Amino acid sequence: MKDVVAGIDIGGTNIIFGLVDNSGNVIAENRLKTVDYPDIKDYTYAQDEALNIMLRENPGHRLIGLGVGAPNANYHKGTIELAPNLAWKGIVPLAEFLKERVHVPVIVTNDANAAAMGEMIFGGAKEMKDFIVLTLGTGLGSGIVINGQVVYGHTGFAGELGHTVIVPGGRECGCGRRGCYETYASASGLVRTVLNLFSDMRADSVLRDLPPSELTSKKIVEEAEKGDAIALEAINYTAEMLALGIINAVTFSSPEAVFLFGGLVKAGELLLDPVRKYVDQNVMPIFRGTVKILPSGVSETNAAVLGAAALAWNELKK
Amino acid sequence: MKDVVAGIDIGGTNIIFGLVDNSGNVIAENRLKTVDYPDIKDYTYAQDEALNIMLRENPGHRLIGLGVGAPNANYHKGTIELAPNLAWKGIVPLAEFLKERVHVPVIVTNDANAAAMGEMIFGGAKEMKDFIVLTLGTGLGSGIVINGQVVYGHTGFAGELGHTVIVPGGRECGCGRRGCYETYASASGLVRTVLNLFSDMRADSVLRDLPPSELTSKKIVEEAEKGDAIALEAINYTAEMLALGIINAVTFSSPEAVFLFGGLVKAGELLLDPVRKYVDQNVMPIFRGTVKILPSGVSETNAAVLGAAALAWNELKK
Repeated sequence: MKDVVAGIDIGGTNIIFGLVDNSGNVIAENRLKTVDYPDIKDYTYAQDEALNIMLRENPGHRLIGLGVGAPNANYHKGTIELAPNLAWKGIVPLAEFLKERVHVPVIVTNDANAAAMGEMIFGGAKEMKDFIVLTLGTGLGSGIVINGQVVYGHTGFAGELGHTVIVPGGRECGCGRRGCYETYASASGLVRTVLNLFSDMRADSVLRDLPPSELTSKKIVEEAEKGDAIALEAINYTAEMLALGIINAVTFSSPEAVFLFGGLVKAGELLLDPVRKYVDQNVMPIFRGTVKILPSGVSETNAAVLGAAALAWNELKK
Repeated sequence: MKDVVAGIDIGGTNIIFGLVDNSGNVIAENRLKTVDYPDIKDYTYAQDEALNIMLRENPGHRLIGLGVGAPNANYHKGTIELAPNLAWKGIVPLAEFLKERVHVPVIVTNDANAAAMGEMIFGGAKEMKDFIVLTLGTGLGSGIVINGQVVYGHTGFAGELGHTVIVPGGRECGCGRRGCYETYASASGLVRTVLNLFSDMRADSVLRDLPPSELTSKKIVEEAEKGDAIALEAINYTAEMLALGIINAVTFSSPEAVFLFGGLVKAGELLLDPVRKYVDQNVMPIFRGTVKILPSGVSETNAAVLGAAALAWNELKK
């Protein structure tokens, strides 16, 4: 019998889960629809059943732990708390409920912390003690590792870099405040910057022919690659703002590397090159040249499951 | 024989040192003039001799370690690097040189990290694993503790919160950049705010009768206590900016408490009350009410020596 853990990534639409060995091989992967389980207890039954089926279909494996990445998850308490995109309202004791069904250790954290753990155990940070992962999707998530440990803080909710204020009085944020990092440095931040440049710049652009509500970061990156002036300037500005948040994080914890992950990183060197330039140019002199800006070393296909599984493997090794 | 360590605080003008037992009692304290030792080797001889004299005058004590707080000190390497206010230029292997003379373990870090260690071992953070100390003097120094460990980072220079950018394009900073936290939230930041309010506000103020070069934070606090409108507004704005940096730090590492230390804290509740109000009002909702804003629990008289000594005690306990 070979020991495996299950990595489970709970999102607003899908719950993706898989069996992962301690070398990071994904033995099997499947998914449940989040909306099918408005009652958390129903979900834990379904999850247990789905894992049992998966184990029967892949004989020779013994399940020894669950790692779960979920929005608004609290590592200390094993709970999901006040998650706006889930039907499970209030404070949900997810780890406890899952453990009652599956009878193995259950570790819970948010998806960006799971991504950081994935980077450390299976990705580009294997030899590192101090690094940060930024997930650049609709918002900006972050997982921070210091002295080889994910930073959870006193509350269990630490590492919300997407909501550090980098422009006082700046863009409105979904959190109800203004000027948060993620309103500039994310896929939706890139879209907002293009909308702003429509008024600031005079250049022609095919992007002006789309209704603003249909503008996506994917489309903007495509046009930038063809040389569209507004798209290029938007990526340049996004890189400068992304760099500003990285600079402040470096001033705080002086990591060896910052890994970038998620949709926006598809822009590749078009984004990464200017980010490196702005970090080098604007960081405090004492930190110049001390931090690598790298794309994530975890393949996007299995990243969510691998991150959650890494969380469990890390805990089991203690 | 009772074990003691020496705590040594190296500043641009004075080197203050003392013998400290493991309960935080300062058995003796003395000082050397920094400028008397332009050669680092001469200093280490003088420091060894001064400690021997101190031990002879206080019989019954055995020296088992040195902790040193110094500007631009690197914990990992035991060096002082490129310190602008010291005659010792370049990269100085301070720990190595001191150890050659004194023959006990020597630990080196910057003064704000030493202050954090003092808070943890002898001050208000004895039971805490996650907290931050901000030293509000001419500049703003910070010591960050996460999971019970001071954050040194990959480079050994982490925890420079005074140089996180909180207003892009804002006030000029001594580090050569703009908008750093310490240009707003420090004794000199308070003075700069009053100078700005001289033009923004119409109110009378005795502070207008002083040449700007003679304006001090002490004088401003005195006038605020008497009800001076400009001084009061300056303290209010300083509190708001101090809160902004605290809010971003909370979003990063979610500490249990932030301790404030140094000259500016003499303003007492006049400063602390609005800081607490602005933190509570402007922090991300998930962190509301989770962080205490407290004056340092280490008495200012011996704080530098106690902090440096705490550094040594902490290392010896490992």
